Amino acid sequence: STEITWSAESAEKGGYAHFTIKEIYEQPKALKDTMTSRIIPGEKIRLDDIHISKDMLTNYSRIYIVACGTAYHAGLIGKVAIENLARIPVEVDVASEFRYRNPIIDHKTLLITISQSGETADTLAVLRESQTKGARVIAITNVVGSSIAREADDVFYTWAGPEIGVASTKAYLTMLVAVYSIALHFAELLGTEETSYLEEIKKEMLTLPEKVAKILKDTTKIEHFADKIHGEKDVFYLGRGLDYQIAVEASLKLKELSYIHSEAYPGGELKHGSIALIEEGISVITSLTQRELFEKMQSNIKEVVSRGAKVMAITYEDNKDVEKYSDEVIYIPNTMDIIAPILAVVPTQLLAYYVSLYKGLDVDKPRNLAKSVTVE
Amino acid sequence: STEITWSAESAEKGGYAHFTIKEIYEQPKALKDTMTSRIIPGEKIRLDDIHISKDMLTNYSRIYIVACGTAYHAGLIGKVAIENLARIPVEVDVASEFRYRNPIIDHKTLLITISQSGETADTLAVLRESQTKGARVIAITNVVGSSIAREADDVFYTWAGPEIGVASTKAYLTMLVAVYSIALHFAELLGTEETSYLEEIKKEMLTLPEKVAKILKDTTKIEHFADKIHGEKDVFYLGRGLDYQIAVEASLKLKELSYIHSEAYPGGELKHGSIALIEEGISVITSLTQRELFEKMQSNIKEVVSRGAKVMAITYEDNKDVEKYSDEVIYIPNTMDIIAPILAVVPTQLLAYYVSLYKGLDVDKPRNLAKSVTVE
Repeated sequence: STEITWSAESAEKGGYAHFTIKEIYEQPKALKDTMTSRIIPGEKIRLDDIHISKDMLTNYSRIYIVACGTAYHAGLIGKVAIENLARIPVEVDVASEFRYRNPIIDHKTLLITISQSGETADTLAVLRESQTKGARVIAITNVVGSSIAREADDVFYTWAGPEIGVASTKAYLTMLVAVYSIALHFAELLGTEETSYLEEIKKEMLTLPEKVAKILKDTTKIEHFADKIHGEKDVFYLGRGLDYQIAVEASLKLKELSYIHSEAYPGGELKHGSIALIEEGISVITSLTQRELFEKMQSNIKEVVSRGAKVMAITYEDNKDVEKYSDEVIYIPNTMDIIAPILAVVPTQLLAYYVSLYKGLDVDKPRNLAKSVTVE
Repeated sequence: STEITWSAESAEKGGYAHFTIKEIYEQPKALKDTMTSRIIPGEKIRLDDIHISKDMLTNYSRIYIVACGTAYHAGLIGKVAIENLARIPVEVDVASEFRYRNPIIDHKTLLITISQSGETADTLAVLRESQTKGARVIAITNVVGSSIAREADDVFYTWAGPEIGVASTKAYLTMLVAVYSIALHFAELLGTEETSYLEEIKKEMLTLPEKVAKILKDTTKIEHFADKIHGEKDVFYLGRGLDYQIAVEASLKLKELSYIHSEAYPGGELKHGSIALIEEGISVITSLTQRELFEKMQSNIKEVVSRGAKVMAITYEDNKDVEKYSDEVIYIPNTMDIIAPILAVVPTQLLAYYVSLYKGLDVDKPRNLAKSVTVE
């Protein structure tokens, strides 16, 4: 397996005010390091520490992805990627719930656990109990030699480097690379998609470090929006398809860093209750990266705007239409819809950071939170 | 199939101030009507409009439950019931998300749709698209002759009677009877549980109308708590296992009726981010009905109390211990943990109703909401 070196210095703040913003800016490097040696155009995905053959994979009737917090949100995207590319049913659950609900686990179960530290107590317990029942376990983790890495059958190390900020940013982005790489690998093993399509995704993934760097270059509009909302008590995130999974993580990030009560909804669920909360002046943040759902999402945005909401939308730079019905539009470089979360989440991290900054909070160590939850 | 008669009068308010509270009080009758002729001690569950044999059931590799809003929350409990009793993997999704995520559907798929009106646009679209791909569809609905009832292969009619209040209460409770009845039926077909255990559940279910009536008899403490929190902007609901599914529905009910921004978390996820929002004076509502999880839940409650939260807990009348670490305890009659949601959700409906009342809102017709969402 490849070793990526992060110097001791990289665990200091360098010229940045906080670890959190430094780590947001380290994302192009973290993405690149995590893809290097694994994603090579014209070659099959190389996952040296995952030893699952086509025959073994065919035997698994179901995949569970189990994690906590931000890692769980990476799992939500992993489900979409694996189901779409490899056509294997995937169920995602938070570890503290999964453990106690008597899930159906046997030798036909493949479990994927995700944990930055590799020491998350509930996730580790799920790993152990599932192995006892015959499941095979792939661990996605950022820490070599952690308990979860040692005990799993297969490992995918995210090479994010040390993450000090309590709210995860760069580790989350590399977890996304991990789940996409595993989805591509499974699709290659099973032949569920055209090689040319899988090649196209791989090539596009390799452009993402540069595209993230482009997003990070000019944060003026995001800072402006952060300034506008930093005094608010409640903020809503909306999305459809993968934009909903982005919303869920974006919402958690704002909560952790700013203590604003934010919540994410799937766009189509608005009318089934949560739209009762939308009133004059409320802020709604959304992303539009799933081209097939633009029209549906547009009508959801118009609904909240007609109730008086202020909308910040994140979308592709060629989707200028969104300006017609949003107050503020943050553009991200065009990419393939299926991997768009890796780009679209970045402005939401910056937003959470700047809101925290404007509120004068302890960005790197939000109240009540610990970096790794090693107790249940 | 049995016809239950609700008089024209029953669609008027009788002596009640609002349809919503009238419908909450109609729940013992609605439960009874929905169980009558279906759950008979000593006999197998009788579902006259569901024609699925043991052979057919064995063929289904997966069950999807798809719905919107409150009906989706009934589906979350259906998953737990079916997986626990019949050991068939179940995936629950909101209709507006399920439709667009290219789910794996074929002749080995059984779909259960839940819709009070039987006209919910996204749910109806899922039904049609799934049938085209070869899936069999069971509809749970309250309206005879509705589009969803007509187009489904099998039907479970909830006999809740007409529901006028926009926020669903009695329809939801009868949806729970539906999912438990289907779970018991599947368990009987497959022989996955001891007959004596299934008999015990059936007998206990038949006691629930009376137990709900008991909860409705004295609402003083709930009114008191509603008065205390009606001026608040943010409220949190916590639970583990089935208490989490209860929390999710309880939170939606408060949102719909009171416009307070409430949100539900699984207890174990608190430490992974949301505890950053818990500060002095915040209200946290929880239920403790899953005996195996009492200890874990107790430690979550202590965590939020130590941050200054005021806690209202709902638990069994023999679980007096909870008084030691909660500000207010609402007792419900003892029952079997697996069907406890049918009781535990009732105090949360009353709470949402009284908060709405004390705020002087339009209880029966919350702003922005329609009774049936027949457009996408």
